[in-house]
Amino acid sequence: MAKKKRTQPSPPPAAPKPKVKLPERDRKTLSEIEGLADGVVAAADRRRDPHVDIPSRTLSNVRYNKSKRFIEMGRNTNRRQLFNLSQAKSFMQTMLVASGAKQLIEEGKTTSIRGLYYLLKHTIEGTKEETFADQKESDPIIEDVEVLLNALREELHLYAQKRGDMIGPIILVDKGDEIDCSRMGSGGYGIPSIVEPDIIQFKSCQAKFILHVEKDTVWQRFNEDKFWRRHNCILTHGGGQPPRGVRRMLNRLHYELKLPVYCLLDNDPWGYYIYSVIKQGSINLAFESRRMAIPDARYLGLRSIDLDRCGLSDSVKITLNDTDRRRAKQIAAYPWFQGKAAWQKEIKRMLDNGFKLEVEALISKDISYVTDVYTPERLAEQDWLD
Amino acid sequence: MAKKKRTQPSPPPAAPKPKVKLPERDRKTLSEIEGLADGVVAAADRRRDPHVDIPSRTLSNVRYNKSKRFIEMGRNTNRRQLFNLSQAKSFMQTMLVASGAKQLIEEGKTTSIRGLYYLLKHTIEGTKEETFADQKESDPIIEDVEVLLNALREELHLYAQKRGDMIGPIILVDKGDEIDCSRMGSGGYGIPSIVEPDIIQFKSCQAKFILHVEKDTVWQRFNEDKFWRRHNCILTHGGGQPPRGVRRMLNRLHYELKLPVYCLLDNDPWGYYIYSVIKQGSINLAFESRRMAIPDARYLGLRSIDLDRCGLSDSVKITLNDTDRRRAKQIAAYPWFQGKAAWQKEIKRMLDNGFKLEVEALISKDISYVTDVYTPERLAEQDWLD
Repeated sequence: MAKKKRTQPSPPPAAPKPKVKLPERDRKTLSEIEGLADGVVAAADRRRDPHVDIPSRTLSNVRYNKSKRFIEMGRNTNRRQLFNLSQAKSFMQTMLVASGAKQLIEEGKTTSIRGLYYLLKHTIEGTKEETFADQKESDPIIEDVEVLLNALREELHLYAQKRGDMIGPIILVDKGDEIDCSRMGSGGYGIPSIVEPDIIQFKSCQAKFILHVEKDTVWQRFNEDKFWRRHNCILTHGGGQPPRGVRRMLNRLHYELKLPVYCLLDNDPWGYYIYSVIKQGSINLAFESRRMAIPDARYLGLRSIDLDRCGLSDSVKITLNDTDRRRAKQIAAYPWFQGKAAWQKEIKRMLDNGFKLEVEALISKDISYVTDVYTPERLAEQDWLD
Repeated sequence: MAKKKRTQPSPPPAAPKPKVKLPERDRKTLSEIEGLADGVVAAADRRRDPHVDIPSRTLSNVRYNKSKRFIEMGRNTNRRQLFNLSQAKSFMQTMLVASGAKQLIEEGKTTSIRGLYYLLKHTIEGTKEETFADQKESDPIIEDVEVLLNALREELHLYAQKRGDMIGPIILVDKGDEIDCSRMGSGGYGIPSIVEPDIIQFKSCQAKFILHVEKDTVWQRFNEDKFWRRHNCILTHGGGQPPRGVRRMLNRLHYELKLPVYCLLDNDPWGYYIYSVIKQGSINLAFESRRMAIPDARYLGLRSIDLDRCGLSDSVKITLNDTDRRRAKQIAAYPWFQGKAAWQKEIKRMLDNGFKLEVEALISKDISYVTDVYTPERLAEQDWLD
């Protein structure tokens, strides 16, 4: 095929385009990025080695803040220097990611973390050295830049894969479009990965609480049975471990609309961990807890007593494996679970049972047992773990 | 925790509930299921061995129908008998899945394939035998029942995981809710897994074509750049290999609204294969081709000439591995690609290149190169593979 004429050659990536006035959030992030660059220039001017001090994202540098009731980062940092053979590359990669974020913000565009990798990947002039060998190199640098600038990934104009839906009596505005989440057909409203207040505003809400379930298949059951209509709630799921957009949405709904959050998850270490992340934040993203964690979230089930309590058949048991047992013990040792007798009992019983239970196991009672009986009973009896 | 009183004991699963009049599609499926059961009774009455003949879902039993231009199932069947030690279990599992579908249809409910597994899993009375050891046993039986009854999975009231979104100037009705797909904010309309005409109706459509992209991250780029508004099209993605709901939606949009379908996929064997499935149907689900395949779908890119044609940097190449090479050769040998010189050249060039290219690689030119330059040029020049 003949080579095509290109009437509009693409501009060189670095050329800043004339832009409309940036939103305040973007201006704040830009000034953080410029501050980072200024630091390098200042060091050079004073003939010092340019460096950045990156807050350390390790277990030893997170702590559970008992008064805020979520995980916070400590103050340990790792120094990354330009004139250090083992750190020069990652120093330059750090600057490159920051400059990529600057470009995205200035152009008013967002991209995926894979997109940023491609945006920044090139062979350094005069060498055979690539800026990034593969995405495994750029992803952790993105997290470094997040903590360095104290900015959410979304504020760097980057997004993760979209996952998770919501439905219920709430009207919101998403990029100017009014979305009535009670009139979304069978599919619901797909929760975007960037849900900050300048993009999404809550217009009106009749719901009294949020029911968050683990998987879309369980969510479908609740949706099909119109649980959210009968119980006047917002129904969400996060496709397993909820991505940042879903966690941030839950956090905003909880704090801005004063809606309690109830979680219905599998009775296994993975379900416990999802609850832990929703409630207290995650270790890896501890710097985001202030905008993600929901310390008052409640764990509605499934519980390790449910095989007996609900009279389920032994057929639905799934035997614990070694990983399950190890994870369960780790979770029981989390500081935020340690002081809680009910949680210790819950986890111990699962270990003693020797099996886990998925929410879907309730189907063996009746297709709609989970929506007709299980969840309404838990809510009516205020029977949950905290 | 004390055992709870249950005021509403759940009904036994088999008890049919009084039902409203079923839609015609459900009545047809039910009569197929009853026909299956009648066959067993008739055999027993005549003192014959009950059996079912299940169309074989193997490569040797599919053929490319040149006039219909999609993959069809052949007439080979495998007999499954009750009184055969090696087949008795799967015979009974087949009946069990059919009876589970009957229950779902009669109750007007749907569930996931995992849900059906739990619904049907139990210990057979008086034995230690489980109906299904795990979901790996029930999933293929579900496909058997689909071909046996000539019914789509969705017609058995089963759904797969939801994946894929759409946006654009089309208004549809989903379970009675009117959805304006041009006013869906940043997230778009999540394509449900069941999109049959009794659930989803098209109300009005201004779009002139459909652009289907592989991944949600690429879809986000097109959505953010309002490509669908500038080019008056519907924008869809299937999160990789599109699930049935997305394929069926594309098929309905194509045939009912006369919209051409253009595919923008990665330049790798996986991208070629996605195109092949959208266009000709898949081998495993050949019995569904008549409602899934879109023989006139077009492959817009990426092409194996694109590194040169678009002047991309070598950095974006991803080296082919052995699996890629083997898959590429398999795909080149598909009957529906064999007679096509352009496709043979395309695949050969990729193999000669020794590398693959993701759509995201175009970002290295400019963040919006794919929406501003690449796709408009291909469309304007009618430059695609067929």
